Amino acid sequence: MSRRMPWKLKKAAMNRRVYNFGAGPAMLPEPILIQAQEEFFDWNHLGMSILEVGHRTPQFMQLLEHAENTLRELLKIPDDYSVLFLGGAARTQFSMIPLNFLNSEQKAAYIITGIWSQIAFDEARLLKSAYSIANTESSGFTATPDLTQCTLKANTSYIYYTPNETVNGVRFSNVPNLGNIALIADMTSSLLSEPLDVSQFGLIFAGAQKNIANAGLTVVIIRNDLLEQQIKSSIPTMLNYKVHMDQHSLYATPPVFNCYIAAKMFDWLKQQGGVDVMYQRNQAKSKKLYDFIDNSEFYLTKVETQARSLVNVCFALSKPELENSFLLAAQQQGLVALKGHRLVGGLRASLYNAMPMEGVDALIQFMSEFEKDNEY
Amino acid sequence: MSRRMPWKLKKAAMNRRVYNFGAGPAMLPEPILIQAQEEFFDWNHLGMSILEVGHRTPQFMQLLEHAENTLRELLKIPDDYSVLFLGGAARTQFSMIPLNFLNSEQKAAYIITGIWSQIAFDEARLLKSAYSIANTESSGFTATPDLTQCTLKANTSYIYYTPNETVNGVRFSNVPNLGNIALIADMTSSLLSEPLDVSQFGLIFAGAQKNIANAGLTVVIIRNDLLEQQIKSSIPTMLNYKVHMDQHSLYATPPVFNCYIAAKMFDWLKQQGGVDVMYQRNQAKSKKLYDFIDNSEFYLTKVETQARSLVNVCFALSKPELENSFLLAAQQQGLVALKGHRLVGGLRASLYNAMPMEGVDALIQFMSEFEKDNEY
Repeated sequence: MSRRMPWKLKKAAMNRRVYNFGAGPAMLPEPILIQAQEEFFDWNHLGMSILEVGHRTPQFMQLLEHAENTLRELLKIPDDYSVLFLGGAARTQFSMIPLNFLNSEQKAAYIITGIWSQIAFDEARLLKSAYSIANTESSGFTATPDLTQCTLKANTSYIYYTPNETVNGVRFSNVPNLGNIALIADMTSSLLSEPLDVSQFGLIFAGAQKNIANAGLTVVIIRNDLLEQQIKSSIPTMLNYKVHMDQHSLYATPPVFNCYIAAKMFDWLKQQGGVDVMYQRNQAKSKKLYDFIDNSEFYLTKVETQARSLVNVCFALSKPELENSFLLAAQQQGLVALKGHRLVGGLRASLYNAMPMEGVDALIQFMSEFEKDNEY
Repeated sequence: MSRRMPWKLKKAAMNRRVYNFGAGPAMLPEPILIQAQEEFFDWNHLGMSILEVGHRTPQFMQLLEHAENTLRELLKIPDDYSVLFLGGAARTQFSMIPLNFLNSEQKAAYIITGIWSQIAFDEARLLKSAYSIANTESSGFTATPDLTQCTLKANTSYIYYTPNETVNGVRFSNVPNLGNIALIADMTSSLLSEPLDVSQFGLIFAGAQKNIANAGLTVVIIRNDLLEQQIKSSIPTMLNYKVHMDQHSLYATPPVFNCYIAAKMFDWLKQQGGVDVMYQRNQAKSKKLYDFIDNSEFYLTKVETQARSLVNVCFALSKPELENSFLLAAQQQGLVALKGHRLVGGLRASLYNAMPMEGVDALIQFMSEFEKDNEY
């Protein structure tokens, strides 16, 4: 029974870590990866890997509780909100939201500022009734809308928007204020990257693969009274918020390993000084890169100044024919995943919490050299 | 940019590995855990962890293709079947199946042999129309039903069953033959543990956390013509098989790490000699344990001989008041997670592919000693 682990490490292969500018799955903090690797084979002295730990063991329940409590602390989540850790991709929320909160008489209002809010809107229209109160597509999704003239239809159950659009690099600098109707926000790419007043929202959700954990987990923060307004008709049980809430995220087997990484990420964030510190760093990182782009004629960004994302810097070359050489040369310097989203093209540097300023400095230095090499 | 990994291992804590008899998340093969740990910080010489790798990188696409091809080889999956790797728990399938394959005139026939088929049946009735053609609840779910007298209603679109019921430890030794209607099977606990003729099925699904990977992934094997019969009405997009099939499991961000573990598990299984070898081992492991239980008056199992699961051996003590001491003493011997499912109580030893015969031997030796210590 007592077996020593046959420990053998290929150290040689591990001497170089790249800066990963991918929009998600994204870079994770090195200390978390190191710690997870160290305890990968035997977690918590249980004699088994975290991959093998049952979701109803006291150890996992404690981990999940710790993760929730740390997240509550980081975001100052009020007591009348529940936190759910759900398996699978955030896209499922696009269906869950209309299915749970729209009866046959109700409508939802969507603010369209990019690819993700557009897809969420399409899904709401597929399943229930929804209308858009603003749409910045005519600007090429380079701006946030003026919402002062918006009017809401009768029986509007919720207002939906995407505070940061990953594909287009567009960010709301303020939370829309459209009255007392529940505000629902897809914060997949922004949660934990900047301060937040949770009480302004009815529901917030975020896929994990930016600032929370590896891909396969979605975090939902939901005001409890919303669940009382929930539709009583036949919602697929796995898409029913109340079921997950009543079962404390254990209705189905949760993604144990992702929850474990999330718990570590929340601890790390707290150690770093919390969301305010991250916000300062993210501001500094993105400002440095935008300033460099603005001061160059070789690089350009179309996103309006006040709408620029803190975490997804979308840009392009004034000579787009050089894009492939740019990407290849960057990769050779250990600056990877700078290609823009396949639906919009161009270039994109994602600067989530785990991206250090050194990564941004290395990128700017490379961009500067690439410009010099290709100016004429 | 070139940074060596600050490598520091807590070797001391890793000297003892337990036998984990949990029903899922379950034990994984040691070589896979060791290999995953070795390459955790830097996968495939990419300079990043597998947790950070984008799902649209050539490296991940290649991994997913390799996983699919190995699974196809292991199960001899015919060419007219698609394989999907979906994020989240297998429970989502309970909704997807009726939503995708039942229009308002159609019905589904369910065979109820335990907790999981019961829950799947309830979900089908919640969302669409379904009826049961057999139900062994009156036996306390200790038997498989006689299906020779079953009659199917008109407009039956599919027949659903659970070849192995994890909670009750009940297994079909044959595939039901009820004519030409699509047969759908929840193989969460049995896939890859015994041989299988995929062509007998319309759709097979399995949650990963038994024989495939860590929790957070569901594998679906689906006959392509079924998708042509799919309902055209408003299915939530994430619950639409055709969408996932058309997008090669990349409609939403997949659980990258789970797919990576799955690829390793399939490779390992192939190296071990494939599904036939696993079947022999699983037969030998479960036979040894059932024989020991049958030869004892201290332990008992209610499951009928021909219905006994190969992978979930459910049993009880003739003195149930000793159950807690049994579990505690077992745990002290490194034999963990032997508690039966909370809905049925008793004891359960899950013996999936990763459980070696040595684990079964250690369990039997412990059970024998516990019996001697507590006989009088």
